[in-house]
Amino acid sequence: MENLLDGIEDILLMGPGPSCVHDKVYEALGKKSIGHLDPYFIRIMDAIKANLRTLLKTENTLTIPMSGTGSSGMEACFVNLIEEDDPVLVLINGVFGMRMQDVAQRLRANVDTLEFDWGTPVVVDQVKKKISEKQYKIVAVVHAETSTGVKNPVAEIGALLKGSETIYLVDAVTSLGGVEIAMDAWGIDALYSGTQKCLSCPPGLAPLSFSDKAVAALESRKTKVPNWYLDLSMIMKYWKGATRAYHHTAPINMHYGLYQALLLILEEGPDNVYQRHMTYHNALVQGLEDMGLSMLVAPDSRLPMLNSVNVPEGVDEAAVRSTLLKQYKIEIGAGLGPLAGKIWRVGLMGHTARQENVTRLLAALKSTLS
Amino acid sequence: MENLLDGIEDILLMGPGPSCVHDKVYEALGKKSIGHLDPYFIRIMDAIKANLRTLLKTENTLTIPMSGTGSSGMEACFVNLIEEDDPVLVLINGVFGMRMQDVAQRLRANVDTLEFDWGTPVVVDQVKKKISEKQYKIVAVVHAETSTGVKNPVAEIGALLKGSETIYLVDAVTSLGGVEIAMDAWGIDALYSGTQKCLSCPPGLAPLSFSDKAVAALESRKTKVPNWYLDLSMIMKYWKGATRAYHHTAPINMHYGLYQALLLILEEGPDNVYQRHMTYHNALVQGLEDMGLSMLVAPDSRLPMLNSVNVPEGVDEAAVRSTLLKQYKIEIGAGLGPLAGKIWRVGLMGHTARQENVTRLLAALKSTLS
Repeated sequence: MENLLDGIEDILLMGPGPSCVHDKVYEALGKKSIGHLDPYFIRIMDAIKANLRTLLKTENTLTIPMSGTGSSGMEACFVNLIEEDDPVLVLINGVFGMRMQDVAQRLRANVDTLEFDWGTPVVVDQVKKKISEKQYKIVAVVHAETSTGVKNPVAEIGALLKGSETIYLVDAVTSLGGVEIAMDAWGIDALYSGTQKCLSCPPGLAPLSFSDKAVAALESRKTKVPNWYLDLSMIMKYWKGATRAYHHTAPINMHYGLYQALLLILEEGPDNVYQRHMTYHNALVQGLEDMGLSMLVAPDSRLPMLNSVNVPEGVDEAAVRSTLLKQYKIEIGAGLGPLAGKIWRVGLMGHTARQENVTRLLAALKSTLS
Repeated sequence: MENLLDGIEDILLMGPGPSCVHDKVYEALGKKSIGHLDPYFIRIMDAIKANLRTLLKTENTLTIPMSGTGSSGMEACFVNLIEEDDPVLVLINGVFGMRMQDVAQRLRANVDTLEFDWGTPVVVDQVKKKISEKQYKIVAVVHAETSTGVKNPVAEIGALLKGSETIYLVDAVTSLGGVEIAMDAWGIDALYSGTQKCLSCPPGLAPLSFSDKAVAALESRKTKVPNWYLDLSMIMKYWKGATRAYHHTAPINMHYGLYQALLLILEEGPDNVYQRHMTYHNALVQGLEDMGLSMLVAPDSRLPMLNSVNVPEGVDEAAVRSTLLKQYKIEIGAGLGPLAGKIWRVGLMGHTARQENVTRLLAALKSTLS
């Protein structure tokens, strides 16, 4: 029979994720499976927990990967923390803030929102006003809004909430591994991420961390978590303690990949990794501007790993992406929602953030646009 | 830094899953990632759908892998089909039937159960009586009860429900790829499985199929599915049609693994694969009985891929498992729930179901018990 896997090409992944993967991570994915209760696998789990804590700058015991993609991390944070009619504030300036609202509403939370123009950051003073008017159980925001390329002021919002009863919930899907996150110092209580962005591991796991305050909220629920698969009160018994209780079969080989991806970041040094993202982001922006292109987001709020480029008037943006993929073997992303057709999204995530990739994209884009 | 992946040993996986994986599947997992909207990836998705349909003997359009392990498939089936107070009947004779009950109750269904002794199958006449007394929206049963090694009469229960309004929901986590499943002929409306059993792919995806009747029930819901991540009404737009709508980033490399695993089964021929499971199951049972050991389950209801062996009196079952793992590099499983300490669970799933593995286990067990 024809095997489609033989025809997979080596594509330079410069979209909004998945990102390029280091050969060592691919090798890790293909290591022999062992059992999910094998003592050696538990050592690997423990190392993943420890390494995630280092990268997140947190002491949180409950710091684990969920068995799904980044969006399962979002689902997990909300479903474990929300009970019916809980007041939740979601700060929205892109697709992923909207997704948070949808997730929370499906779980019957009482959801308020504060909305900001797409391409601009959340305004801290407006958040301050809003939370002074009403007591929220959860305030939720996206750190790196993948749909626009905006970095939200997560530390500053955290400072507003310090000492309050409110649980501070942050989406770090695209930020983790690309910019600093200081979970404890910033007062973040619940955080999720994904493997396929700046961690440079294929998609399939969602790192998640809960502070003691978030765990206390989980443990004092009046009702069972209405999602068996993502119920952290059961899952944590598999991830800690001397005897591990089976919940569901962990995605063994994906954990090998995540373990290796984290090791690569720690070996390079997180600060060096963040600097590398910034360096090649600057090189990319300079190159794009030299070509006469402009960025959607103002310099102060730009993410290094997700670069939103305004599509020049009269250019068929889909045709450009198609040419880049077919002819140059480079993937970049389209705009979403109100930005569909208006921007390209160029990822410089994790292993992708290198000079040779910036150079190759700029050359390809120049040829395509000329 | 120390790399724990270097210390992974080659363990013969004869537990209740994960099972042994073919080298070609390991190679597939390490192929280069491409984008989740790349037209070539969509070709691979389409091939996975077609091959799953062949294996399930179904024409169902909505036949896809969910982005989580087998239990996420259970969650997905129930959460997409249940609305508050819906009457649901769950047939229980092991851990996974109990899990179905828990999942359905968390979703606020009105759940009735019919319970049978662990180690014995569901009794069709009792089901017939129960469904004659009350109209259920869903009747749910586990095909291969992994906690006991019992095969339930899925075709016979399906025959009772034919022509009714009831949705017939079947757990095929351990059965798919090891025994015949004829989804359409048996009248199954919703089915889920996992990759890490008889499909012999590492854990991480949950094949799922919905009949037109199940899709109609989903589409006529009064409320949104209370689980964004597993909402099939959105996910199906990513898996079919000329233009694919992004929902969440698919676990790319896990799909490569599943694609390859399905190809291996279709190349060998499903009927040959099922016969191979039966042949080495018979060889295993014969060998165990020759050693004076006995099986938990009566011959008529035994699963070929999950063999429950009674622990002889006076034997420390955990010590035996530990010796098998440490000294012989063979993993077998413990009993769960009321069967904890009373049985071993020996898997012959997918690629594991081979003479050399049966021979190796029997020799190791004989030495360990002597």
